[in-house]
Amino acid sequence: MARLPGLGPRSARRAVLWLVKRRESDLPRLLEALATVQERLVECETCGNVDTMNPCHICADPRRDERSLCVVEEVSDLWALDRSKLFPGRYHVLGGRLSALDGVGPEDLAIGSLLARIDKGGIDEIVLAMNATLEGQTTAHYIAERLEERPVRVTQLAHGLPVGGELDYMDEGTLAQALRARRPVG
Amino acid sequence: MARLPGLGPRSARRAVLWLVKRRESDLPRLLEALATVQERLVECETCGNVDTMNPCHICADPRRDERSLCVVEEVSDLWALDRSKLFPGRYHVLGGRLSALDGVGPEDLAIGSLLARIDKGGIDEIVLAMNATLEGQTTAHYIAERLEERPVRVTQLAHGLPVGGELDYMDEGTLAQALRARRPVG
Repeated sequence: MARLPGLGPRSARRAVLWLVKRRESDLPRLLEALATVQERLVECETCGNVDTMNPCHICADPRRDERSLCVVEEVSDLWALDRSKLFPGRYHVLGGRLSALDGVGPEDLAIGSLLARIDKGGIDEIVLAMNATLEGQTTAHYIAERLEERPVRVTQLAHGLPVGGELDYMDEGTLAQALRARRPVG
Repeated sequence: MARLPGLGPRSARRAVLWLVKRRESDLPRLLEALATVQERLVECETCGNVDTMNPCHICADPRRDERSLCVVEEVSDLWALDRSKLFPGRYHVLGGRLSALDGVGPEDLAIGSLLARIDKGGIDEIVLAMNATLEGQTTAHYIAERLEERPVRVTQLAHGLPVGGELDYMDEGTLAQALRARRPVG
C-alpha cells in the first residue's frame, strides 16, 4: 500500500486501518472494483491509451479529427490534455521518454508504431506534447528529427508564462523563453 | 518591522531582538545603509526604474538597443527580466496594473509617458511584459489598443509551459494555452 504514489508509510497505515475497520462493507467493494480494472482495462493497440475498449474511446470516436496526432510521454499526459478538451485530434502514447540515466533508448518507446501510423497516410500534423523537462525536450527533438523526411507538419506545445504567472516569481529560464518566443499582439 | 514583506510578526520580533543585541555594531550600519537608500535612490524620469542615478543605468547605457522598449507593471518585474540578461532594449515601468477592484484606471499608470516616448520616435518594438494574471492581461490588452494607431510593432511574452513543467501537473488553462499557441518545430 505504501508503494502507491501519493501515499507515504504513515498514510498507507492509516488507509489500511480504515479498510480493515470496514472489511465487511468497503473492502469487498474495493476488491471488486480493482478486479474489474484488472479484467477489463486494456491498452489501445492504436494509440497506447488505457481504456475499457480496444481501440479506445478516443481512437474509435468518428468526430475526432484523424489528421491531427498529439504525441505524449505517458497515458497520464494524454488524460491531462484531454481534460482540457481543446485538442480535437487523436493521441499517441510513447510510454516514456529518452533517458541516458535510466537506459531508455528510442527502441524502448512507441516510436516505430508512430512512424507506421504516419506512413499509413491521412495525418497532416504531429503535435509534440512532451514535458518541458530536459528529457522531454530531448525526446521531442529526437522525434522531430525522425519526422523530417515525412510529409507532416510538426509542431510543439508553446513554452512561456503559465496562467497566473507573475514575472517576479518566475525562474530565469521561463522568463528567457517567454521573451525569446514573444509574439505579435492582435 | 512586521510589515516588511516576507516577515511575519514572529520573525519580525526575532529580527528586532537580533538588532537590539547588536545595537553597537550592526544596527548603526543598517541605519546608515537605509539612510543612503533614502538619500540616494531616485526614480528614473525616463523609464520609472529605481536607481542611484537619473536617468538610470539602463537608460544611460549606450549599448542598450533604444529601438526596443519592454513595458512592465512594477520595478520588481524590470529587475526580474533584466536578471535574465536576455532583453537588449530599454524598459518602461507602468507603476501598477489596471484594476477595477482597486480603483486603478489608465490615468493612474505611466501610460501617457509611454505614448510620449513612442511619439518622440526611434522606437520600433513595444514588448508588453505584463504578468499572466487577469489584471496583467487586461492591462496589456488596453495598452495594445492604445498603440494600434502608432507605427510600432507590439509583441507580448509567450504563454505556455514553464521550464520543467510536466503536463500532468499543469492547470488546464496553461495546457489550453500551450496547445493553442503551439509552434512549428525547427
